[in-house]
This record gives sequence, structure tokens and C-alpha cells, in this order.
Amino acid sequence: MGQVVMYGSVSVDGFIADDGDRPGPLFDWLVGGDVPLDDGGVLRVSRASYDYTRPYWDRIGATVVGRRSFDLADGFDGTPPSGVEHVVVVSHRGPPEGWDPAAPFHFIDGVEGAVAAARVLAGRRVVEVSAGDIGGQALDAGLVDEVRMDVVPVVLGSGRRFFGAVHAPHLLEDPDEVIEGDRVMHVRYRVRRPSA
Amino acid sequence: MGQVVMYGSVSVDGFIADDGDRPGPLFDWLVGGDVPLDDGGVLRVSRASYDYTRPYWDRIGATVVGRRSFDLADGFDGTPPSGVEHVVVVSHRGPPEGWDPAAPFHFIDGVEGAVAAARVLAGRRVVEVSAGDIGGQALDAGLVDEVRMDVVPVVLGSGRRFFGAVHAPHLLEDPDEVIEGDRVMHVRYRVRRPSA
Repeated sequence: MGQVVMYGSVSVDGFIADDGDRPGPLFDWLVGGDVPLDDGGVLRVSRASYDYTRPYWDRIGATVVGRRSFDLADGFDGTPPSGVEHVVVVSHRGPPEGWDPAAPFHFIDGVEGAVAAARVLAGRRVVEVSAGDIGGQALDAGLVDEVRMDVVPVVLGSGRRFFGAVHAPHLLEDPDEVIEGDRVMHVRYRVRRPSA
Repeated sequence: MGQVVMYGSVSVDGFIADDGDRPGPLFDWLVGGDVPLDDGGVLRVSRASYDYTRPYWDRIGATVVGRRSFDLADGFDGTPPSGVEHVVVVSHRGPPEGWDPAAPFHFIDGVEGAVAAARVLAGRRVVEVSAGDIGGQALDAGLVDEVRMDVVPVVLGSGRRFFGAVHAPHLLEDPDEVIEGDRVMHVRYRVRRPSA
């Protein structure tokens, strides 16, 4: 069974966007480098960020996003981002009107069902859960194996939180990887499991 | 003139204590190691944390804390913590009743005045500003040169924020140092100055 990874760029104070849903300087590291990260050549990162990010992206089989992110991105125009095969949208509503039913998007109510469906779609590959409210719900539900934080050196002060409205404390392991890029530090934590 | 450093242990989601002002696992790294960090031998850390923390503590000339922290710590019983020489308490009230006027504590209204006084007291040594509301106010006022975050692998979900109620975005430089300890990662950022 593939791993479930919670993933996103985050300010040092824990925000993934400002109050207006703008990432501001959080995505600077994705466009300021020398090495193309995606096929389109829009994203260009440092060598260190490429070596950390590209192999991870290549392992993703399905991405779980919230309806809010889906709507903000205009449904990604029906094409999953970053070459991901399947997108599972957590939503009690179906697709928007006029949506192409052949697009590899799946609308599922509730984060537990969404992650279960994404696991099936991903097979042995990684299930990515977007940081934010959905990611926090997945962490609370005990569904997240690993947290990947791309920590950007900026204090935002307010905005949308990486861990959403997560409840009780969750212990993580010490980082498995800490990679310093340019305007980003990539940190990868396994979620600590309650001892048996 | 000495540097002004904002300092504290912090969860990966940006909290320095839970809703009940308890640090929870945030201080585990300070008591779980082999190397004594303070004279009393209460604090014991890993070698990596010692090598990072002790030289920094030795450079501190004065610490600025909020009245809330001062009261929560019962005025530190009149003795500055961790061998610091002077404590400046940001408060519009004076010392508590029965306070020893010879104790090296100074009660000053407003964060700008408190930092100015701490600079005088510290001389060429470091002025430390506690993370939390006071630290956030100092950052907003442009008074902070460096932010030291001792990042603990735990998600707290809610509580007192490292940057308090800080306003506008503040850019930091990429970290000057990233040191991995045991249940802590020490990260040191310089605050980016507006270009001239």
C-alpha cells in the first residue's frame, strides 16, 4: 500500500497562503531557479530543490484536494497538476456543470472516503494530501504517514494554515531529510505512530 | 551595538505553548539529553544542541520578556533565567509588591522602550526578545535582527503563537544555520532589511 503524504509550501509561522488565498513569496522558490521542474518549463528551481522534489513528484499516484482549492484553481481545467494521474476532490457536491466526465477527477464526500479512494487509484504509489483543512483532517483521522513541509523564510502573520483546524497534538519523528534550497528548506517528517 | 535576537522553542505549526500556556513536548529536547546545559544540571541536551545553544546563551546580555511570562514564572524568583544578567519586563505596571529593588529586573512600558533599555544594559552583547506577543511586536517595529527557532517535531494545533499577533509579512534570509538535535531542529534566520 502506498504512503499518504501531506505536502505544501509553508511560511515559518505555519501559513500556506495569506488571508486572500494568495501564496505571496511562498512560491518564489518554484520560479526563481535554473533547473526546469515541470514539462512546461514554468517551474524552475535550484538543483537541490530539483533533486529533492522531482523524485517525490514522480512517485505520486493520486492527489487529494479540497473543494476550495479545486474551485480556486478553476478545476485545473480538467488536467491534474504536475503530471499527477488522479485527483480526488473532497466535496459533497459533484463536478461543476459542463465538466468532462472523462477527466481523471473524482468527487468524494469526506476525507476518509477520499483517501481510501485515492489509495485504490494510486496502487503502490504515493497518495498526496494537500496541506490545509483537508490535510489537517487527514492527520486527525490518523491517515497521514509523512508530512513534507517546504518551509519558506517569511513570516505571514495570518492566512490559511498548513495544518488547517487540526485538533489534539500530533507527534512527528525527527526529520528524515532536511534539504536547503534557495528561498526554501525542504523538511520531511514521519508521523509518530502510537506505540503498540 | 549588540544584536537583537527573537528566540524560542516552537512547534512545526508555530506555537510556543498550548492554550493552557503549557509547553508540552516543546521542552523535551531540553531535558532528554546527556550534556548538562545549565549550572544547575536541570537542563540536559544532546551534544549538537549544546554546541549550538550554549555559546549563544553566553552571548546574551539582556532578555526582554512580556509581563505575562514574568507573572507565569512568578518573577523568576528575582533571579534572571539561564545566567542572563538583566531582564527587561514589558509592562505598564511596576514590580510586584514586596519585590527586591536590587533584583536586576527593569519594568518598562512598550516594546520599543524595553528594547532600547535592554540595548543599554547589554552593551555589545546580545539582546534577546522572547518569542510570542512581545517578539512579534518587536519584529513589527523593525527591531529584530535575527530569529532563532528551535523547531520541535510536534503539531500543537492551537495555543500561543511564536510570532504573536504580528502584522504585515516579514521576509527573512535563508537560514544561516540549521542544526539537527534530538527532538529539535535549531534554525537561525537573519531578518531581511528593506534594500536602501
